[in-house]
Formats: sequence, structure tokens, C-alpha cells
Amino acid sequence: MEVNDRIVVVGAGNMATSLSMALKKSGNAPVAVWSRTQESAELLGRLVGCGYTCEIEALPDADVVIISVVDSALHSVARSVASRYPNALVMHTAGSIPMDALREAGASRYGVFYPMQTMSKSNIVPFDNVTIFVEGGDDASLLYAENLASRLSSKVVRATSEQRCFLHVAAVFACNFPNAVYHMASELLVTNGLPFDSMLPLIDEAARKVHLMSPLDAQTGPAKREDHNVMESHKAMLDDDLREIYSAMSNYIMKRMKKL
Amino acid sequence: MEVNDRIVVVGAGNMATSLSMALKKSGNAPVAVWSRTQESAELLGRLVGCGYTCEIEALPDADVVIISVVDSALHSVARSVASRYPNALVMHTAGSIPMDALREAGASRYGVFYPMQTMSKSNIVPFDNVTIFVEGGDDASLLYAENLASRLSSKVVRATSEQRCFLHVAAVFACNFPNAVYHMASELLVTNGLPFDSMLPLIDEAARKVHLMSPLDAQTGPAKREDHNVMESHKAMLDDDLREIYSAMSNYIMKRMKKL
Repeated sequence: MEVNDRIVVVGAGNMATSLSMALKKSGNAPVAVWSRTQESAELLGRLVGCGYTCEIEALPDADVVIISVVDSALHSVARSVASRYPNALVMHTAGSIPMDALREAGASRYGVFYPMQTMSKSNIVPFDNVTIFVEGGDDASLLYAENLASRLSSKVVRATSEQRCFLHVAAVFACNFPNAVYHMASELLVTNGLPFDSMLPLIDEAARKVHLMSPLDAQTGPAKREDHNVMESHKAMLDDDLREIYSAMSNYIMKRMKKL
Repeated sequence: MEVNDRIVVVGAGNMATSLSMALKKSGNAPVAVWSRTQESAELLGRLVGCGYTCEIEALPDADVVIISVVDSALHSVARSVASRYPNALVMHTAGSIPMDALREAGASRYGVFYPMQTMSKSNIVPFDNVTIFVEGGDDASLLYAENLASRLSSKVVRATSEQRCFLHVAAVFACNFPNAVYHMASELLVTNGLPFDSMLPLIDEAARKVHLMSPLDAQTGPAKREDHNVMESHKAMLDDDLREIYSAMSNYIMKRMKKL
């Protein structure tokens, strides 16, 4: 990529905001941002220090357009972008939408730029440790996406649209389900007059360990030891819903987390 | 407690080691440690800079004895300790063993001193943020345990033997099951040629968020949104074992993590 390439970010949500700020930090600040409403366009434009508009036709010329809007809006926004920018490289940041959606929307050069992070509301996420998964409709687009990503993160990986689907479901296991089991622990504690924050060092330690070793090596607990006495006494303390989860999780650990 | 009370730690495993070092740091270093083998007794004794022995009868006089051995050894070790120390306050550090086990072993003054942390092998855990749960056979023993604990941590909570059972099962949900779902994510990724370390920012973010808000408030994802289209497409990508877990977890989230 050329350092002076003009990038436009279409969208002003959590991902678009974190992405715009990461681009700025890398010395590739967007020349303009778009949002559906003038208010949010202005908010992000002022944050980045670049142009902003709520009309796609009013966006300045650009070499690269990154679309980062909610999945349900992507198709119609992509059509407007492809019509405004017939020659630009058009990319989206959506985990579960195939790259072909951009070709179908009329883009001639297209790709995917997918930073793997959970974007919290009003929390600008730095991209340094985030893996950015890239895909390109042709070799030049793929290389461009790869080069741009490598300016934002040291972790850049090529992934097909099908692989991105697996990233999405894996993220549910790595991020949504841990939080759900935290809630189960919280229910058990609060019901018995005990403080949830007593679990925080354990939660942190479980997260910390998989930076150093595989989850297979990090597993501990009664199911890993196949300690049926403890598991039975635990199940006897649980209501039906929690016992079902406890059994399914323990069975999985005993079946698929054996060390060979 | 008196600053000059003589403390003996019986055991030299992960918990006994972390506890001995935390006691030392607080200015209450044990006067001696015991282990079943001379080698491990010496290792810990030298680390702490105190006496060590593998014979309980050879331990020096003490005011407080903290037993921290594997559950299966606790009863017989406690009998020897109660016989050697008829007048000392005897405490154990075991989550799932009732305090009465110490009375049954012959101790006249007894209590429980239970730091809620997962003790990793060869990893000395600082106690500053660890909640220490205490119990006492009488008011004086309880107060003593409470005072000693408050020298090691700002988080000291009274818990009955029954409550400690719930702490133990809650810890399985907060620590063992998150690691198991990390492994599920890892399986999905590796099978599809994708790197597990791309999940680390999500894992860290999920752990970080529950320091700031309840798991109920922190929950995100398709089940929380009741997005059945996404859940069905995810389930179609999973094998039987993972689909069972995905369904059970999603059903729990939809049923018990609704916001009121």
C-alpha cells in the first residue's frame, strides 16, 4: 500500500470507531467517515480529526473504503458505496458475511478486513494484540488488506469466508460462554450468601494460563481427575438447569480432554 | 492475635507454600514447616527461612498450627497434630472438608482458613486479592482466624462448612469450565486451520469485564440477543458433543440471563 492512500471508513459504531482510531495511530488516518446520522458522523469525525458526512454521495474521493456497519445494513450500504466508488478497493469488517456480498453489491475490487475482538460500547480497543483476518477478491486486494492490517497489528492471518464462520462460532465459545459460566458461579454464590468477587482471582488465573499453555494442558478440576465422588456431590447441590450444564461440561472434559 | 504467636504450617504443597510465603510477607513467618518427606520439608523450610521436619512429634511448640495437605491425608495428619498440640489452635485450608473433621481428630480449639485461589504448581500465589474464608469452632478461634487472615488479605469473609461446599462447586464453574470452553474454541479453530491465540483478546476481555460489572450485565452474543438464525447456523457447524454444549449454554442464557 501507499502511505498516502486515502481511506474512508463507512460506519461509526464500536468497530468503526476502534478501527478509525487504530488507523490514525498507525499514521493512516481516514480522510473521512460516514454514519447514518449526522450526529454520530460528527462525533467520530471530530474524534479522528477528519471529514464526516451522513451522505455517501458526499464522501471525498478515496482509494480504499472500509465498511463497518451492522450486518443487517451491510448489503444496502455496500451497494451505495460501490456506486459512489466504482474504482476503490471496498472491504467489510463483518465476521459472518461472505466476501462475495461485496461483489454482489457491485464492487469491482473487494476484500475483508476482520479484527477479531469483542468491541465494547464506548470502549476504544487497541489493535496491537488483535489478530486481523484478511481476504481478497484478487491477489492485489489480498496483499493490500494484508499490508494495511500489518500496520495495525503484528498478527495478520488470511482466512476464507468459510473459515470466518468458524471464527465466529469459536468466539462464542471463547467469550460468550465463559461469561455465562461466570454467571452460574455468581448464582450459586449469591444464593448462598457468598461474594462473587471471591471468584475473580480464579477467573483471571484461568484466562492467564492459556497465554502460557494450551487449554488441554491447563485443565484442572474433578472432571479432569475423573473424580466421580466429587462430581456426584457437586451435582447433588445443583438445580436441574445447572446440573445439566455441569454434566455436559464434565462429560466433555472426561471424553475429549484426556491427555494422550 | 499476638504478633509473636508461633505458627507452624503442616504441609509443603502448592497451598502450603503460597500460604507460608504470604505469612512471611505479612511479618508472621512460620516458625517451622512439616512435610511427609524430608526433601520437600527442607525445600519449603529453606524457602521460608524457618525450621523443617518430616516428623510431627519433632515440630517446635506453637500457638497455631495450619494443616494444608491433600484431602485424603487430612484426617490422619490432623490426629497426629492434635496429639502433638493439645492446646494450640488447629486450622485446615481445605475447601470441601467440614471443620468438624478437626474436632473429630481430637483438636480442642479449631477453625478453617480457606484462601479461594487455584494454586498452580510451582507458582507462588500472592494473597492480596484472594478472599480468605474463615470459620471457627468457638468465638475466640473465629476471631483469631479472621485477624490472621486480615493480615494477608483485605478480603476476609466468614463461611460455614456448608457454604464452603458451594464455594467449591462455584469455583468449578468459574475456573474449570471456562478453560473447557476455551478448549472447545481451540478444537474448532485448529480443525479449520486457524490460530487459537486469536481468541486471547476475547478471553481476556470477558475476564476483565466481570471486574467492572456483573456477568448478567456483561453477557453478549447470539443467545443473549435471542438471535435464533445465528444459533441455528452455528449448531449446524458443530459435531454432536459441541452442539449439545452449545444448546445447553444457549438455553441457559436465554432462560436465566434475561434482563428484567
